Amino acid sequence: MELSRALAKYSLDLSFEKIPDDVKMFTKLCILDYFGSAFAGSNKPPVQMISELINEMGGEKQATLLTGGRSSVLNAALVNGAASHIVELDDIHKASIIHAATVVIPAALAVAEWKKLSGEDLITAVVIGYEVCYRIGEAVSPSHYYYWHNTATCGTFGAAAAAAKLLDLNEEEFIYALGNAGTQAAGLWEFIEDGAMTKQLHPGKAAMNGVMAVLLAKKGFTGASKILEGNRGFFKAMSEEYNEGKITEALGEKYKIVENSFKIHASCRHTHHAVDLLIEMLHERETDPSEIESVIVRTYQAAIDITDNNDPQTQYASKFSLQFCSALALIKGSANLDDFNDSSLWNNETRQLMKKVSVVLDPEINAAYPEKWGAGIEVHYTNGDIVELKTDFPKGDPENPVSAKDLLEKYRNLARDLPEEKRERIAADILALESIGDMTDLLKDFSSSLLS
Amino acid sequence: MELSRALAKYSLDLSFEKIPDDVKMFTKLCILDYFGSAFAGSNKPPVQMISELINEMGGEKQATLLTGGRSSVLNAALVNGAASHIVELDDIHKASIIHAATVVIPAALAVAEWKKLSGEDLITAVVIGYEVCYRIGEAVSPSHYYYWHNTATCGTFGAAAAAAKLLDLNEEEFIYALGNAGTQAAGLWEFIEDGAMTKQLHPGKAAMNGVMAVLLAKKGFTGASKILEGNRGFFKAMSEEYNEGKITEALGEKYKIVENSFKIHASCRHTHHAVDLLIEMLHERETDPSEIESVIVRTYQAAIDITDNNDPQTQYASKFSLQFCSALALIKGSANLDDFNDSSLWNNETRQLMKKVSVVLDPEINAAYPEKWGAGIEVHYTNGDIVELKTDFPKGDPENPVSAKDLLEKYRNLARDLPEEKRERIAADILALESIGDMTDLLKDFSSSLLS
Repeated sequence: MELSRALAKYSLDLSFEKIPDDVKMFTKLCILDYFGSAFAGSNKPPVQMISELINEMGGEKQATLLTGGRSSVLNAALVNGAASHIVELDDIHKASIIHAATVVIPAALAVAEWKKLSGEDLITAVVIGYEVCYRIGEAVSPSHYYYWHNTATCGTFGAAAAAAKLLDLNEEEFIYALGNAGTQAAGLWEFIEDGAMTKQLHPGKAAMNGVMAVLLAKKGFTGASKILEGNRGFFKAMSEEYNEGKITEALGEKYKIVENSFKIHASCRHTHHAVDLLIEMLHERETDPSEIESVIVRTYQAAIDITDNNDPQTQYASKFSLQFCSALALIKGSANLDDFNDSSLWNNETRQLMKKVSVVLDPEINAAYPEKWGAGIEVHYTNGDIVELKTDFPKGDPENPVSAKDLLEKYRNLARDLPEEKRERIAADILALESIGDMTDLLKDFSSSLLS
Repeated sequence: MELSRALAKYSLDLSFEKIPDDVKMFTKLCILDYFGSAFAGSNKPPVQMISELINEMGGEKQATLLTGGRSSVLNAALVNGAASHIVELDDIHKASIIHAATVVIPAALAVAEWKKLSGEDLITAVVIGYEVCYRIGEAVSPSHYYYWHNTATCGTFGAAAAAAKLLDLNEEEFIYALGNAGTQAAGLWEFIEDGAMTKQLHPGKAAMNGVMAVLLAKKGFTGASKILEGNRGFFKAMSEEYNEGKITEALGEKYKIVENSFKIHASCRHTHHAVDLLIEMLHERETDPSEIESVIVRTYQAAIDITDNNDPQTQYASKFSLQFCSALALIKGSANLDDFNDSSLWNNETRQLMKKVSVVLDPEINAAYPEKWGAGIEVHYTNGDIVELKTDFPKGDPENPVSAKDLLEKYRNLARDLPEEKRERIAADILALESIGDMTDLLKDFSSSLLS
């Protein structure tokens, strides 16, 4: 069977009733986590530029923009997709290297709001969107990732799958939608060399393009039936190696969304293990930085390649510095979005402490990567004490899960610019999403600006 | 110098005054030819579906949709890009394998209309758009073309370059625009296996994406500075082989737009040489099909691979059948859009004549391909006469140019559903484009429908 057809059949077969309760709860947490990132990102310049563009272009008031106001379902998918990736706190799936929330959820949300669908519909669509893009990402990982931003490319399929479920596409239409999602899939990593704003355009366009493919399919606009495995399709064109089997292996038997990892700290994922351990240590033993003689962080090579930087020059770079993040964790006891600022970047205490942090390769931890993103810390106190801690997984991985409470706290922190009443009402509504009959209710009191 | 910077400098340096008169005239013919294809395509189902979608989404009335009405500049680029590729009569550049008109012109036209720019501005922008996408297409041809629809992928850069010139982007903004055009570049050939409607989505989205990149750049939205040659950029990610030198070789010294080929016949370009020769033969000697014993068409392998089909089952397939197109030319003396219909496809006379046509490889012609797309015909009459004709280039190639009169006749044929007065007024306006001070004038009397 063509892979698109297998995915279409899976999607058509899945209903809200079939989804186990723990998966439903997990999905609501994904949605809550999406909103936190999107609220925190909505006022950032690249997101505002995209939002301004959309407002100049205009559109029917079909769905809420998280930057304020309403526009067409395509425009909402674009803006709300761009908004939720920029604070670098959105969820991540290790095996497919995809941040699914920032693509799948804005697509699904815009369609659900437009068509006044229910919270149950939204949950079901999000489960399907994650499933489809994770499977495609796994099929092409890791080689595809060298050139391509999986969140954008594979994410386009996820956005389409979620929107297709919500708009009740039949099997053929679903296949067309995946065909025209895949032929729009784009997003090169080249922007990273310049730290360009492109990174926010990618998830926004992926969400928009996925929805566009679905709206066209609903009108009978045809697409390639073998967009994934075809001779001139997505796999062969865009991945040096790929594993088709990942698309259908146990499809419908398990729920890949629960493999999702949540980010608690506002830094690169490769710094989280050490930050977790240092915060854990502080819980056991209050420590003043002056008591510390040295800190050794042992980890895997990929973490060292990306985050061994003892002199970051920008806030952005500081999030990719293991030395900085370790020092920050020791001083603040956290690594929240707020903790990364020019003051913490340049203050003397941080800089002094960073000099005491060394990052070294641990062969055993390295051998276990990428299944395990582990680290060990060794903190030497000036009084001669040594504390050693080790973890195989950063907090937020499925193997080291965060609680709903942790995620709610993260949401509150990210959404802190919203009026408290509104912030809490939305969180409560999302956590009781099954009981929402019409998704326009969720964002009903967001008019010209979200932040008022 | 980075390649994007070289292209930005070239564009900033080019002014209408610098463009030689023959190039200006040629560019106006490209624009005229675009309108013919777009008018003929505007009522086709896939184009109507995209147009309906856009109308549902809504948008400010900034630019004319060739399907009727007005919408945002992005929506106009999308619809008008989709409209002009479907009748398969749009222009083609052999060396880059790009149909530039269907991407560059709708992008430029929408922006020029929106900003009330002049005909001179439009001509200059179109010259730049063609130059940029042809160069990029040449740099990645032929390997890129195996998976990717160059018109869509490389065309995105051309649309961006044209829009960037019209919106007066500075050098850095121009570079950002190319960066964010390239990161959106997409369009896989896989749809061709199903003959899916995707082919029309490609140029529409390329035009839209290119304009979006420009509108964002104008707001300061940054993009990759080395989107073409960078380690994770367009060339390395999307082309097995590429030649960077093509981007800057004699840049600014010649005008690649004049390398453009126009299509006179409504069939695959690989059938045109034979159709040209058979029509030429009929001009010399009126021939009834019953007088013909056999026809041998000698050509290059690529033409045989794509068009050796003696039993086409659909109108679309008949345009890719050398046997059918040859029979059609012999019976009708033409291969216009009108000539391809179910009646000609299935009638007995055509089918009988097709059986007499054989297609054979000519080693000499094959060796000269792709520089020359040549063919020879050998028509054997029942009375024993043999007529032989040969050409190195189909009509419409720069080496075998069509006249302005030929193109005007083609335009009139394609735009025949328009009221005559309107059709002629537009043609005349385009041929005097330099004298239009505000491009909104060109489409001023198109309100709800173009065809009334």
